[in-house]
Formats: sequence, structure tokens, C-alpha cells
Amino acid sequence: MTGRFPSPPSRDRVRPDVAVVGAGPIGLSIAWRCAARGLRVVVHDPAPGSGASAVAAGMLSPVAEAYFGEQQLTELLLASAERWPGFAAEVTEVTGVDIGYRTEGTLMVGLTGDDLAEARRLWAYQQGLGLPVTPLRPSELRDREPALAPRVRGGALAPTDHQVDPRLLVPALRAAAQQAGAVLVPQPVRHLSDVDARVTVVAAGCGAAALTGLPVRPVKGQILRLRAPDGVAPGFRHVIRGYADGEPVYLVPRVDGEVVLGATVEERADTTVTAGAVQRLLRAGVDLLPELAEYDLVEAVAGLRPGTPDNAPILGPLPGRPDVLAATGHHRHGIVLAPITADLIADLVLDGVSDPLLGPFRPDRFLDLTPGGSPERSTEGDQWS
Amino acid sequence: MTGRFPSPPSRDRVRPDVAVVGAGPIGLSIAWRCAARGLRVVVHDPAPGSGASAVAAGMLSPVAEAYFGEQQLTELLLASAERWPGFAAEVTEVTGVDIGYRTEGTLMVGLTGDDLAEARRLWAYQQGLGLPVTPLRPSELRDREPALAPRVRGGALAPTDHQVDPRLLVPALRAAAQQAGAVLVPQPVRHLSDVDARVTVVAAGCGAAALTGLPVRPVKGQILRLRAPDGVAPGFRHVIRGYADGEPVYLVPRVDGEVVLGATVEERADTTVTAGAVQRLLRAGVDLLPELAEYDLVEAVAGLRPGTPDNAPILGPLPGRPDVLAATGHHRHGIVLAPITADLIADLVLDGVSDPLLGPFRPDRFLDLTPGGSPERSTEGDQWS
Repeated sequence: MTGRFPSPPSRDRVRPDVAVVGAGPIGLSIAWRCAARGLRVVVHDPAPGSGASAVAAGMLSPVAEAYFGEQQLTELLLASAERWPGFAAEVTEVTGVDIGYRTEGTLMVGLTGDDLAEARRLWAYQQGLGLPVTPLRPSELRDREPALAPRVRGGALAPTDHQVDPRLLVPALRAAAQQAGAVLVPQPVRHLSDVDARVTVVAAGCGAAALTGLPVRPVKGQILRLRAPDGVAPGFRHVIRGYADGEPVYLVPRVDGEVVLGATVEERADTTVTAGAVQRLLRAGVDLLPELAEYDLVEAVAGLRPGTPDNAPILGPLPGRPDVLAATGHHRHGIVLAPITADLIADLVLDGVSDPLLGPFRPDRFLDLTPGGSPERSTEGDQWS
Repeated sequence: MTGRFPSPPSRDRVRPDVAVVGAGPIGLSIAWRCAARGLRVVVHDPAPGSGASAVAAGMLSPVAEAYFGEQQLTELLLASAERWPGFAAEVTEVTGVDIGYRTEGTLMVGLTGDDLAEARRLWAYQQGLGLPVTPLRPSELRDREPALAPRVRGGALAPTDHQVDPRLLVPALRAAAQQAGAVLVPQPVRHLSDVDARVTVVAAGCGAAALTGLPVRPVKGQILRLRAPDGVAPGFRHVIRGYADGEPVYLVPRVDGEVVLGATVEERADTTVTAGAVQRLLRAGVDLLPELAEYDLVEAVAGLRPGTPDNAPILGPLPGRPDVLAATGHHRHGIVLAPITADLIADLVLDGVSDPLLGPFRPDRFLDLTPGGSPERSTEGDQWS
């Protein structure tokens, strides 16, 4: 094994090869991959899995989330989604845990004529990229999901957009990482200098801002969890995404009867559940799938996604700190991006090789955004130094 | 003291004078009144205050709840509401507990023209009974509550309809009863024969049906608790009741920032919170008071009210069992009816005197409803025997 970290792995009895800050899906996946390749890994997190993943729906939707002006991100999402079948199989193989990986595909729908017009603009864009999006006639839509409201005007199928259950995934990733030898340390990391390892990976979600000065900001999301009455499975199998009178909404059915209904996207840093958001989500959900009105409302929660100025993650070495790798800013895409983030960051740690896929996501693209416009004038002790 | 229970109170060292089944607001008020008048009282309840009162809003609204065809009930509600100022003062005096008694009055509103037309029919009926209902011009309505939505079409003031906080009231009543000497026994009562006392009072809410065979049925109600952001008081002071696009709804503001938003009335016996009910309540609430959209949604719960065939409570001796008094079936009126229920049942126990007010509410009005139409043919061991 060659690379820029010349000490052979696992020889140093005291100092870890890799310290990962953050035990969410990103940090745990990286820790797993690194430990499985023979590195001595510690993961620091006082509350593993308590960040954005705790409220994530688990959609693996590179196609449905291919938005205008985000083509590089779309390529990364697609590349990671391609790795998901193998990743899911491997997690289950090494841990024995079913992580709720489902492949029924995603239906994208529009409730009203206006909603459908908006959706069709996006589908045309996605088709223009060569992505698998199949518009359906209303009769075909209802054949696939008879539970959809009769007034849903139209839809399209994204058969390769799948789902996983983050609340099963994160504990499974933790088990996988630990089985591979990674050690979890429940202490928080306040400064990068608290960590002693040859390489530090900052996978701290929103917490990355304080640690690195990177422009990661909290983006509040509120989601609901419903449950089909009488313990039966929901009356629909696809992930449903759509617009309902202008409100974007998604519905993710689980085999155990749970339905995740989300999500707001708010430029706020609090985690209170507000009456207005719950009302809008429920209204949109019930309008698309009337049977939801009779479902139990079992949970309403808010979480904070790590957003970035260009909505894309931040992956790679901090400028001037080749020993500190960022793996944060995954915003609404932390679950789908876990496999590729883990593989590419592990390659970087072990081989010093930066995959060309990482190019657009390097931290130094935000150099101009630091206070004063240059790293030297940053006000935070550890950032960009 | 004379009456049909000749043993002088407090002489019998073993057998209680009164056993009250149920430690909700009705049972505790009765226990308090009886104990304060020198009787030896035990109250049986494995979970005091866990019935309908746990989800009650605490409106004291004989005027706003004076409905067509319920004139005898209205008279009882009015008589009890008259006792509330003294009752509240006395509870606070003996316990030192502030029970959230507020006298700002109730605003009744209609959102749309149709809602207002429906409300006006009711107000005319209430005015016809001579009740204090003052229609307000839209400008007067907004002067009183500027937080009301501009599209609220009209309203009326019921100045004598007040409120109390049931979650403060019930523990205070428990303290008052205990201070007066009542003993709480946390065991459940499965049969009336489990209880040994000279008089048994069944104040078990929905549980009264199984104990007595009386036609008390559960009527499900779902309510929400919101909280004004930043710990401030809600932006309105009156209880607001109204119709919003046909949905009847009420909003009860507390000084600590809480707002109770309710309530559904469902002929169901489960206590699940359903997505559709929450959505309808929130929609109606936010339509009437837009600021609620920014409130925290802190609780969504369902409870079961003890309903009866004529929506009125059941107060007095079971037919053929002068030693068993019913005090149940208070449906949506348990809080407002607590003072008069307690006073009149205590009179009955101590003096054997049945106040004329109780006449319409005696258990024997349902004799024809028992299985087979006569008490002798009842299938339950303890009922009507």
C-alpha cells in the first residue's frame, strides 16, 4: 500500500491511523471502510446517530432529486446509488441486520394541473440527462398505486430510485464498523486539536462549521411518522414524491406499517415542531393519499441538515491541512451518499488517491467565502490553518 | 343531621361512610365535599386523573354550549358555572394551588359566511333563553382580539363563559380531598362488591358502564397542545370557539403560553391520534388565528369522554340500590359540572335530600335501555340489582 501517509497501518500501538469525528451514517461508513482495510480507527461522538440521520426518510433518489443546475451533484448521487445494492447487501451480510432496503421504485406525482406542469418541467430535464423517468397515464398510475387520490392529475415512475430505513441503517453501520475494529469514543470533540491521529476525518454534519470554519449551515427539516392502523403494511408500496397545491412532499412506506411524511426545508436552526408545518405536511399527504387520514400520527420531529452554499457536500482535505479531511455538507443526501463518500474518503486516506469524482466537492472551492476572503484571516483557531 | 343513612358519621372505625370509585374531577370533588362534612371517605382509582380530564380543555361554557334540545342540561351547566368562582377560590384557599381560573370570557366566531350563518342560529337560540350573548361587529371583534384572522366574518361575546386548567385542577382537588381526610386507594374496582362502604358513589367515567350497566359509552376526543414561541403568553386572551369551513373548533389560551386546540367528537373507543384529525384541527385553528402556525406543537392526545344517550350526566341512586349513587356520564362537561355534582351528591349522601335540579338526570330514566328492558333481566351481576 502506498500513499502519503507512510507509516504502515496498525503498527502504531497508541496513535490511531484515523480519527473520525461524527458517528452518523457518513462517519460510520468511513470508519467501517477504513477499519476493514486494516487501519486503526476511532470514532468520536457523544450521541451517535443523533444528527440529521435521525430524521432522514432514507430515500435513495438520484433521479427524482436531479434538479436544475446541480449536474455535478447528480453525477455523484447516481454513482453512489449504483453502489447501494452492494453496500446494503454487505451491511446485512456482516451484521445480520435487515436495513429496510426496498427497490419498488419511486412515483413522482402532481395533484393539480399546476402541480403537474411543474413536475413535468422537472421530468423533462431529468429525461434530458438520460435518466430513467417514465411518464405514466393516469390509469397506469392508479394501476401501480390504487391508493392515490382520484384527483391526482398525473405522474411518472423513477424505477431505480429506492429506499432504506435510516433508523435501521445507522445502528447496523455502527455494528459493522465496530466488528471491523473501529472504536467508538463517546466524548465530544470541541477542537480539532482534541484529536490525535495521523488523519482526522470531520464527518460532524452541522458541527463541521465550528470545527473547520467550512460554510456548513443548519437547514431545518420537519417530518412526521405515521403508522397504518391495525399493524398492517401501508396501502402503497412505492415511495411517493409530489407536489400538492404547490407543496412539495414525499411519502415513504415501510413494510412494518410506518410511513414517513416529509419534509420542510427551512433556513432556521431550531428543532421545534411547528403547528403550521405539521398542518401543511398532513394536508399535502392526505390530499395525495386519502387513506393517510386514518393513520396514527406517531411522531413529529425536526432535525438539522448540514447545508452548503451550493447544496453539494464538502469532501476532501482542508486547504493547508492534508491531514484533515472533510466529509460533511451532505444536506438532504447523507443516506444516498454514504457508500461513495466512504469509499472515496477511504481511498484518499489509504492510497492518497483523490478520485476525479471528488473534484467538484473539494473544500477549497469555498476559499473565497471565509471571513476576509482568505484562509489566513479566519477568526477560528483550527480552521484553514 | 338526618337522612336515610342513620349511622352517625365517623363513628365506625372500619367501614367507610362513602366509597368513591374514580379519582377524576367528579370523584375527587365529591370526596372532598363529603370528607369536609365529616364523613369517612375512601376513593378508589389505580390511576387518578387519567380519564377524560387528562385531555379536557377546561372551558366553563354553559352559554356557548347551550345547544338546541338540551335545555335541562343547560340549566344544570349554568347552575354549576355560577358556583365556579367560589369553588375555584375555595380550592386555591385550601391547597394554595393556582388552578388557572380565568374570566376573560369566550368569543364565538364564524370564519366564512356559511360558518357565521350557522353560528348566528345558535346565538339566536341562546339569546332566546335569556343568556348573555353579545354579537360583535367585525371591528369590535378585532378590537378585542387583534390576532384573529382578517377573514373571520363575525363573532359574539359570551362574557360569563370562563376557563380553568384541568391539569392544575385535578391535582389540587386531590390535595383538597386528602387534606379533608379522604383516603386514596390505588386499587381498581372491578365489581361493586369489591367495595365495602355504607354508600358507594360511581364516578368512574366510561368505567361506570361495566360497574353498573348504565348506558355510558366512550366518545373519543383528540386535542392538541401548542405553545407560543419564546415562552411568551399567547397573542389572545379569550377562549375562542368557532366554526372554520364547517369544522367546529376551540382554542383555549393559558397564561404560561400553552394553547389547547380541540376537539374531535368521534364515536370510537380507541385512543390513537390520527393524521386526519390533527390536520383538520390545525387547519381550522390556523385559519382562525394565523399566528398559531408558528407555535410549537407540543402534544397530540386522544381521550374518551363518558357519553350518554341524551348527552346529559347520570346523577343519583341506581334503581333498587339506594346505597349506590351514580355520578358519571358528564361527556364534554365534567369540569364545569364538578362543583354542582359534588354539592348535590354530598347532599344526597349526608341528608338523603335529592335537589330538584337532579330530577332530569336520575339513572332510572334509562330503565328501558337495559338489556331486555327491565332491571331484573340485566346480565351484569352488580347492575340494577
